[in-house]
Amino acid sequence: MTTFAIGVDLGGTNLRIAAVDSAGKTLEKITTSTQVARGRDQVIDEMCGAIQEIVDKLRNTGVLAGIGIGVPGIIEMQTGMLRDSPNLPGWQNYPVRDEIERRLKTTVVLENDANAAALGEKWLGAATTVDDMIMLTLGTGVGGGIVLGGKIWHGMTGMAGEPGHINVEPDGHPCNCGSRGCLEQLASATAVKRMAMEAVETGKAPQMAQAMKASPEFSSKAIYDLAMEGDAPAQEIFRRVGRALGTVLADLVNIFNIPMYVIGGGVASAWDAFAPSMMETVRKNSFVYRATAPPKDAPANADAGRGGPPRFTVISQARLGSDAGLIGAARLPMISSHSPRV
Amino acid sequence: MTTFAIGVDLGGTNLRIAAVDSAGKTLEKITTSTQVARGRDQVIDEMCGAIQEIVDKLRNTGVLAGIGIGVPGIIEMQTGMLRDSPNLPGWQNYPVRDEIERRLKTTVVLENDANAAALGEKWLGAATTVDDMIMLTLGTGVGGGIVLGGKIWHGMTGMAGEPGHINVEPDGHPCNCGSRGCLEQLASATAVKRMAMEAVETGKAPQMAQAMKASPEFSSKAIYDLAMEGDAPAQEIFRRVGRALGTVLADLVNIFNIPMYVIGGGVASAWDAFAPSMMETVRKNSFVYRATAPPKDAPANADAGRGGPPRFTVISQARLGSDAGLIGAARLPMISSHSPRV
Repeated sequence: MTTFAIGVDLGGTNLRIAAVDSAGKTLEKITTSTQVARGRDQVIDEMCGAIQEIVDKLRNTGVLAGIGIGVPGIIEMQTGMLRDSPNLPGWQNYPVRDEIERRLKTTVVLENDANAAALGEKWLGAATTVDDMIMLTLGTGVGGGIVLGGKIWHGMTGMAGEPGHINVEPDGHPCNCGSRGCLEQLASATAVKRMAMEAVETGKAPQMAQAMKASPEFSSKAIYDLAMEGDAPAQEIFRRVGRALGTVLADLVNIFNIPMYVIGGGVASAWDAFAPSMMETVRKNSFVYRATAPPKDAPANADAGRGGPPRFTVISQARLGSDAGLIGAARLPMISSHSPRV
Repeated sequence: MTTFAIGVDLGGTNLRIAAVDSAGKTLEKITTSTQVARGRDQVIDEMCGAIQEIVDKLRNTGVLAGIGIGVPGIIEMQTGMLRDSPNLPGWQNYPVRDEIERRLKTTVVLENDANAAALGEKWLGAATTVDDMIMLTLGTGVGGGIVLGGKIWHGMTGMAGEPGHINVEPDGHPCNCGSRGCLEQLASATAVKRMAMEAVETGKAPQMAQAMKASPEFSSKAIYDLAMEGDAPAQEIFRRVGRALGTVLADLVNIFNIPMYVIGGGVASAWDAFAPSMMETVRKNSFVYRATAPPKDAPANADAGRGGPPRFTVISQARLGSDAGLIGAARLPMISSHSPRV
């Protein structure tokens, strides 16, 4: 009998569920048709139904260790409730963890989705050889997860790990968090699109203007494609993304001096467009990075720490793509000391 | 018999030594006449002589737990050597720890002075009620110390804890670290003096110009005095110090979500002049701070964490003054798992 856990990625749009065994093998993976917009109770019903179905299917070959759920928002770890989640209206102050534990009679661990993604990359992705790592997830916003000694660093109220709100430009673009010029305003998909619109408005980005006109679904991917085709205004946007990421990574390296920093999320696919200015900025801004940079002939995403304690600072693209959060969620009950309250 | 330890504060100018017992009581404290400029070997000789004298004096009443030495510079924890210390030329790659262990036959722990100061404030100063805290030391430069779970966070090569080099102004004043606009360039005593000179050069700071002319020893203290007397250009300098500190504290609160941030070092004496703009900036920039700020009627430096796990973020002036590093150094051998190599 193998031990397995269920990971749930409760996004702002869809619900994905996977069964992963303790060796990291994905046994089942489903994207449900559940529309999160249809409301909390319906989502809970369908989630529990789908989980039960998978558990029944695996009953004869494995033992369920528990369920981990990654959600976009701030979690109150002690109570297993969502404290704040703009993308999940109606879930606030609802005892998510206890309700699912009650229904499915197993350990449930609730976690912020960016923290879950960091744990996923630490377990099976870019950071498997280290105990200390930080992940930045460049999506609609910029999420962050800090893993120290193999465990997610939550801080005293579960609000730690928000490098997306490190200040980069003191008088920069207003941020939803109330500040200005946060990393999120310079390196999220939303920021890339905003910078593209600003460039179009100057009248000096004709190709971007054309692309924007042609497609109402104009995305950061389209701007990346233009950059790779040599469009100068599109390239400048990703250079700015890179400088902002480099500034924050340099801050983090100077603060933590840990061996691994992983960049994931949709915008991380534009790695080739932003990585050069990102690495140039890290090198310029961080004396700790310069003292610990991997040897020049090592590949950019060389594993840190393989064979002995880590001595180099590695900045790497994530490896698990959009599955990082799902896999990290499945890992949660395997390493949690939390006992179910059933 | 009480247990005591020796703390050594090996500054860039003088050498101070204290014997502190395990309850935190200072049994002996001396400032030696040792001039660090006279060179490594002389300093080591005199340091060992002074320590031996104290140990002999206390031999009948206490047991020596070991010696902790705080030094300005980057320590290689594994070897007990100084990796880099601009203020201690000739000490680089010298086996400080092993040499003193050999001579005095007891455990020696070498530590960065800002880390030692953080540990001192955690043990007996502003942060006694918490396990997680960060200290910023505003002196010639801006040092930092991060204490997590009661222990100094060193990072993989001992270079962690450098919030003095968090970027505040992307195109700011060049920093010795190779970057620009680091906190150190905006909140150290050196930075305060530089900003005063810049203000004098504009011709719009007549009182500062006069003070500068009157005293060749013109210090950040003199600028603070002018600010408290109502001199607008001097006040603006400390508002800028406060905004820079606030920006970095907001970053740290968003990253760590820990209960205590302590500001020490000489410039911290100007608290009244910079704290208002510092706290305004922290509140504006950090949603995590706003969610965890102490109740309005609590004193600004209220202890976090007294009675139950901490839930509030407290930003406080240090309490041990220039003794923080000395007391923290004495604490090192008491909590170290390091065994002497004698």
